[in-house]
Amino acid sequence: MIDLLITYDVSTLTEAGRKRLRRVARICVAHGQRVQNSVFEVSVTEVQLLALRERLLQAMDVTEDSVCIYRLRQPREKFVESYGLDRYTDFSEPLIL
Amino acid sequence: MIDLLITYDVSTLTEAGRKRLRRVARICVAHGQRVQNSVFEVSVTEVQLLALRERLLQAMDVTEDSVCIYRLRQPREKFVESYGLDRYTDFSEPLIL
Repeated sequence: MIDLLITYDVSTLTEAGRKRLRRVARICVAHGQRVQNSVFEVSVTEVQLLALRERLLQAMDVTEDSVCIYRLRQPREKFVESYGLDRYTDFSEPLIL
Repeated sequence: MIDLLITYDVSTLTEAGRKRLRRVARICVAHGQRVQNSVFEVSVTEVQLLALRERLLQAMDVTEDSVCIYRLRQPREKFVESYGLDRYTDFSEPLIL
């Protein structure tokens, strides 16, 4: 699997922008999770990445928004630090509810 | 040098939030560039990282905001794709003005 960080820059001042963010969030969350309001960590195969990229390009407004896709290093705990509100959940570990 | 992606999640609905974003942007831009409104790519030494982390923690509101620091892979062109508005400038290449 390929681990990606997807950052989506969109103005949420307009309803149209908020709608695009919701759409992008839905696309990304199908393959991972929302770690910040417009930042997503996803895991995909090469084939899924093709479809994901295509769907993101359709959902965004390329004249107004920006999407960056970073290939992440593994293991996550070694290469990511987070402070403050942390939305990330490690689903590969047992969940204590 | 260590290449980092810093994502900052803050509500910009309040003036206090916008002020924190400006402060975080100033801290990050001292070591790199703003690629999206609240996403920064920076390059630092281990010692600079200590100071950067400390300054970010002071600037953010840990009860309301979120900061993630990802160690990026190199070379950038192989591991990052961007679509739409692209603010990134490769300062290691000759600039054509």
